[in-house]
Amino acid sequence: MNKVITISREFGSGGREFGRRLAEELKYDYYDKEIISEIAKKTKMSEEYIQEVTDNKPHNLYPISFGHTFIYIDNYYPLHQANDIYVEQNKIIKEMAEKSNCIIIGRCADYILKDYDPFRIFIYADMEAKVKRCQSRAPEGENLNDKEMAKKINSVNKGRRQYYEYYTGRDWGDKLNYDLCINTSNANIKELVQVIAKLFK
Amino acid sequence: MNKVITISREFGSGGREFGRRLAEELKYDYYDKEIISEIAKKTKMSEEYIQEVTDNKPHNLYPISFGHTFIYIDNYYPLHQANDIYVEQNKIIKEMAEKSNCIIIGRCADYILKDYDPFRIFIYADMEAKVKRCQSRAPEGENLNDKEMAKKINSVNKGRRQYYEYYTGRDWGDKLNYDLCINTSNANIKELVQVIAKLFK
Repeated sequence: MNKVITISREFGSGGREFGRRLAEELKYDYYDKEIISEIAKKTKMSEEYIQEVTDNKPHNLYPISFGHTFIYIDNYYPLHQANDIYVEQNKIIKEMAEKSNCIIIGRCADYILKDYDPFRIFIYADMEAKVKRCQSRAPEGENLNDKEMAKKINSVNKGRRQYYEYYTGRDWGDKLNYDLCINTSNANIKELVQVIAKLFK
Repeated sequence: MNKVITISREFGSGGREFGRRLAEELKYDYYDKEIISEIAKKTKMSEEYIQEVTDNKPHNLYPISFGHTFIYIDNYYPLHQANDIYVEQNKIIKEMAEKSNCIIIGRCADYILKDYDPFRIFIYADMEAKVKRCQSRAPEGENLNDKEMAKKINSVNKGRRQYYEYYTGRDWGDKLNYDLCINTSNANIKELVQVIAKLFK
């Protein structure tokens, strides 16, 4: 069986950098946004739309009835589309795990691959560190102050939490769902990766 | 400044074994029950009594008044004794951190030493693994079935949680209070220590 590492991560914690460096160090395949691209190919939905759906809690499309007419509230993602995406994501992630040793970032992979016995890592940090990291990487033109950035970080992480909990029934970030939880607040990710890689050599 | 590693651990998770092996590997001083012995020397209380007090939430000694007479409920540890022990523990743990590179097991050391910038590890495991570990190490004559053992484990961990929360105001086991949280459920502690040790070399 291939070695599979899943990395769940708080937005702003450096989980993606950690995963990418670990994949390089171990020479494992690395899947992050590639999963979105694959889903897009199979579902004919746009990558942006898939990204948005998988970043948030799926919403039911509540029909409101007026006499015999049903009206749908249209700024919610239809639940069935979110489910279609999840089902496709499920298949793609399993195919990836069957293909080669790999690292998969986010997307409920720790849960989806539970029969593959992946090594499950959760990367997190305190808010100060997350804000600092996000500020240093903010795209040009995004001029949030630290308070606004903290709000954005919380909002992204709330979406991740709700999406994960909706599809897995588990608590996102609950230690018991992971083999290793790493706080990057005071860490040098490059050096950390060198050490953690040895768990898999 | 000396390198200090604090290890908080769920009862049954192998945290003590992890700490002892890590200390051997790094050639660091190792403090666990030694802290109790030191407190005993300084306070003239027995080691057993100190162990019992520091394993549980401190209780107030509630006086019940009957007219002008106060009656004390006597199977609670007097809070002031628990506090005396905590104050002594505080001093001793700081002395240890100042003496040499060391590993300190439990006893709120992660909090007590916060100005010493310790590397804070939390060791945990799922209940099945904790029961299995405790059964394999049960003292002769202790014939608990798995359900009874799980109850005992929960009870010990509840005491640790409450003691920690009482004196630190923090949540015991909350990821954010640690640099690394390690799930030993599927781990080989001996091999794990070899890898983690490299973080400090």
